Amino acid sequence: MKEYKVRFKVAWHETDAARVVHFSNYFKYFERAELELYDYLGFNYATTLKNSTMWFPRVEAHCKYLSPCEFNDEIEVIMNLAEMKEKSIKYNMRVFNLTTQKISAEGYITIVAVDRNIGKAVALPKDFAQAILKYFNQ
Amino acid sequence: MKEYKVRFKVAWHETDAARVVHFSNYFKYFERAELELYDYLGFNYATTLKNSTMWFPRVEAHCKYLSPCEFNDEIEVIMNLAEMKEKSIKYNMRVFNLTTQKISAEGYITIVAVDRNIGKAVALPKDFAQAILKYFNQ
Amino acid sequence: MKEYKVRFKVAWHETDAARVVHFSNYFKYFERAELELYDYLGFNYATTLKNSTMWFPRVEAHCKYLSPCEFNDEIEVIMNLAEMKEKSIKYNMRVFNLTTQKISAEGYITIVAVDRNIGKAVALPKDFAQAILKYFNQ
Amino acid sequence: MKEYKVRFKVAWHETDAARVVHFSNYFKYFERAELELYDYLGFNYATTLKNSTMWFPRVEAHCKYLSPCEFNDEIEVIMNLAEMKEKSIKYNMRVFNLTTQKISAEGYITIVAVDRNIGKAVALPKDFAQAILKYFNQ
Repeated sequence: MKEYKVRFKVAWHETDAARVVHFSNYFKYFERAELELYDYLGFNYATTLKNSTMWFPRVEAHCKYLSPCEFNDEIEVIMNLAEMKEKSIKYNMRVFNLTTQKISAEGYITIVAVDRNIGKAVALPKDFAQAILKYFNQ
Repeated sequence: MKEYKVRFKVAWHETDAARVVHFSNYFKYFERAELELYDYLGFNYATTLKNSTMWFPRVEAHCKYLSPCEFNDEIEVIMNLAEMKEKSIKYNMRVFNLTTQKISAEGYITIVAVDRNIGKAVALPKDFAQAILKYFNQ
Repeated sequence: MKEYKVRFKVAWHETDAARVVHFSNYFKYFERAELELYDYLGFNYATTLKNSTMWFPRVEAHCKYLSPCEFNDEIEVIMNLAEMKEKSIKYNMRVFNLTTQKISAEGYITIVAVDRNIGKAVALPKDFAQAILKYFNQ
Repeated sequence: MKEYKVRFKVAWHETDAARVVHFSNYFKYFERAELELYDYLGFNYATTLKNSTMWFPRVEAHCKYLSPCEFNDEIEVIMNLAEMKEKSIKYNMRVFNLTTQKISAEGYITIVAVDRNIGKAVALPKDFAQAILKYFNQ
């Protein structure tokens, strides 16, 4: 199965007084990988939010912290499709620290398609679901 | 002239790898004082945003950093009305570090009333402007 | 078993363009409850970091999102001791939205005592572990 | 005079409930440009902090907000050397929104070289100052 990867450097403001990336920021890294994938596949989340009542809130997030990242470390977020259901998707995430050559964190996020008007989970848009499946099944 | 004051402790995630509050967070502290004042005066910004097309974007922000704040320091944000015009308000802000007994930062923010539908500055809502004037002129 | 609770209002900058609290901020809420408990028990994390080589990195974090929080909602973080081992502590966390009267999120964080000099997990400081046990076993 | 430019897209978590980038994040954008320049010139701020007692706190920050940025907008931060003194540097910053083709913000930050041991401003490291001058005077 294909993975989706994004690379970037740790920003100064992402560190805390322990001189490592604050643990909450790994969830921002996870989301960055996810939203960049949608962008790459041609599904702009910004446009979806503006032109429809659909949004994709996270319903679950998890992370194990294995090795810290420091300011300016180059990191890679590696994203896999863990499970796709009718209304939700679970992505596995791994943060690899290219500077230290260690796995920094492992986790997952689960998102669900929700219609804001009715406030309930609905089926994932078909073309969206298919594009994601197609990408990871390459 | 009366001042508006809010007190709280520096959160861990507000620090950076220099072990002091990241400079961008002082602007969050300024905003916290401002929005808590509106709340205190009975003008909930959340409700305004939902029930009208009015919002109050910041058009200018400034800060001088005099002495750092560390995790868990108790700080006080002291807010003054610098100037009220027809469509905008400028607030002076001071962050006093109660733990070190030093002035940590001084600055200001200027907000403007904007109608989101037309994307232009409009007159401040009258009751809102009067409540603010009344508070600071006590 | 006793719980530890902290109450505060959702800050404007904690929201995102979906007009709800960004999912990563719940982990900051969890941490706030944890560090305020240490403060309450007389263990200042700031002092510990300065005067010793001990720190308490998070090794695991988890959250289920049940109902969103919006700007200015009053929330309560309710913290329980899930498990204390020789070198680590797991806290269960619940975010209750007092404004909507709904449980907003449930999760946990696991912290471990680490000696920064040797980079390895060590036994929790005895007085620290005992103070925590004493609090929750009231 | 040469400018230093960095390009990136607005992250989801940088937006707030008004669906635009939170005003405090522009200061993070300014800092990103600054620190990436140092990196480009071979002066890693991370290494400086570890191997010496020198750091570069911000002593002043200013921003005028001209036009909002939304999630996923492509932006460019354009950095100029405004003034270099013996102990401090002032950089002018401009955020150009490539998606809307509008200037989003204009401001500056002033940094000062400080010796952490004595807590006082000191002369900028010579090679650091010269490398910056050389870059902007191209």
